[in-house]
Amino acid sequence: MMNNLLPDERIDDLHRNNYKIIQNTKKFCFGMDAVLLSDFAKVKAGENALDLGTGTGIIPILLEAKTKGKHFSALEIQEESADMARRSVELNQLQDKIDVVIGDIKEASKIFGGASFDVITTNPPYMTENHGLINPNMQMAIARHELLCSLDDIIRESSKVLKNNGRFYMVHRPFRLIEIINTLSLYKLEVKRMRFVHPYINKEPNMVLIEAIKGAKSMVKIESPLIVYERANVYKKDINEIYGYEE
Amino acid sequence: MMNNLLPDERIDDLHRNNYKIIQNTKKFCFGMDAVLLSDFAKVKAGENALDLGTGTGIIPILLEAKTKGKHFSALEIQEESADMARRSVELNQLQDKIDVVIGDIKEASKIFGGASFDVITTNPPYMTENHGLINPNMQMAIARHELLCSLDDIIRESSKVLKNNGRFYMVHRPFRLIEIINTLSLYKLEVKRMRFVHPYINKEPNMVLIEAIKGAKSMVKIESPLIVYERANVYKKDINEIYGYEE
Repeated sequence: MMNNLLPDERIDDLHRNNYKIIQNTKKFCFGMDAVLLSDFAKVKAGENALDLGTGTGIIPILLEAKTKGKHFSALEIQEESADMARRSVELNQLQDKIDVVIGDIKEASKIFGGASFDVITTNPPYMTENHGLINPNMQMAIARHELLCSLDDIIRESSKVLKNNGRFYMVHRPFRLIEIINTLSLYKLEVKRMRFVHPYINKEPNMVLIEAIKGAKSMVKIESPLIVYERANVYKKDINEIYGYEE
Repeated sequence: MMNNLLPDERIDDLHRNNYKIIQNTKKFCFGMDAVLLSDFAKVKAGENALDLGTGTGIIPILLEAKTKGKHFSALEIQEESADMARRSVELNQLQDKIDVVIGDIKEASKIFGGASFDVITTNPPYMTENHGLINPNMQMAIARHELLCSLDDIIRESSKVLKNNGRFYMVHRPFRLIEIINTLSLYKLEVKRMRFVHPYINKEPNMVLIEAIKGAKSMVKIESPLIVYERANVYKKDINEIYGYEE
């Protein structure tokens, strides 16, 4: 299997079902964001899920391990990332459960059809073109900045491809929360559950996990704060459990 | 002074500037909500503030003690509460600094004029008419349920009486957060800061403190969680400090 790796690629253990993932250390590795979203998102038995902007494919692979979902589709615009995700799917022999599709999020409802999924997950670029320096590595830049699609594109297409009462799961940066909520409301995705992720108990959150339901009534549940570190370099128990690390 | 008290009234110490407050034990006593909002809200030197639905007058009295604000207006629709608030203002000899006005929040911009305040504070009724049992005591019912004014009325009038770049501070229940954010956005009040208040670190929040700025750009800061209890009946240090209790 190691023979299939390209330069700068490595295989990492996902601590779930003995699944592995291929990452490129020079280009794009998944972050804690994707791991936490895969834990926050719920996919029920028999449901079909779509991950928008899948990158390495980490989210559908973890969701396949953790849930009883029927089938997982994964959309990725960058051919190199999509190829890496496909090789990870093959490495875990999940070709029947996970389908990696090359395409543009802005075209998701054309590619997959309207009202075709029970669940959407997405770990989108966090920054607009106006936020901070854009990485000179184009692959990283596309993953981090809204160069190829905007928050509005992602939420609009999610609303279209979701069935009524379907669930939308996203991880994002808290500083954009108001824009996120207003955009979700615009496309009839009602936020029903949120959890803020704080590096330490006395620090501001640096991530927010959001569940919205298409066509639901207004009433949101804010969960207890998710705290990452007990102390420097030592994860809290909750985080070790989410990663599947042995204590 | 005790001679001025009506039946069921008592005088409580506010632990700030030796200020006291009159409360009616059978009708309406202020809660932790008002105390936390008075700490979260900022009134700068020379600014004029208005408290919508002031009840006992707790918020303007605490803000007068804690800030360098120039003048505090307080609007209350219930004559009995307004009379009690006025007597508390006199008890603390704050007649020059705090003005209690009897009137309807729905008419606030007619009573005070447009663009007339730097700061609005409000601890409004949390429940709509559809949420839970309505207290048979009408005075308590009006304070807890949206019988005389809705969230939309409060936010609309707040936006009208605030100057451009003026600040709106509200405490509310987290389950209504999405409706709150959408309504604030509708009236050009941009949420800039939020803090969730959790009874315990591992529990959902039961209050949210919100700062919105009229006409501001979209970018919100979520603060560290405010945790109330160390253990049963024992406040955390932050809460003792906000209440002005000696350790």
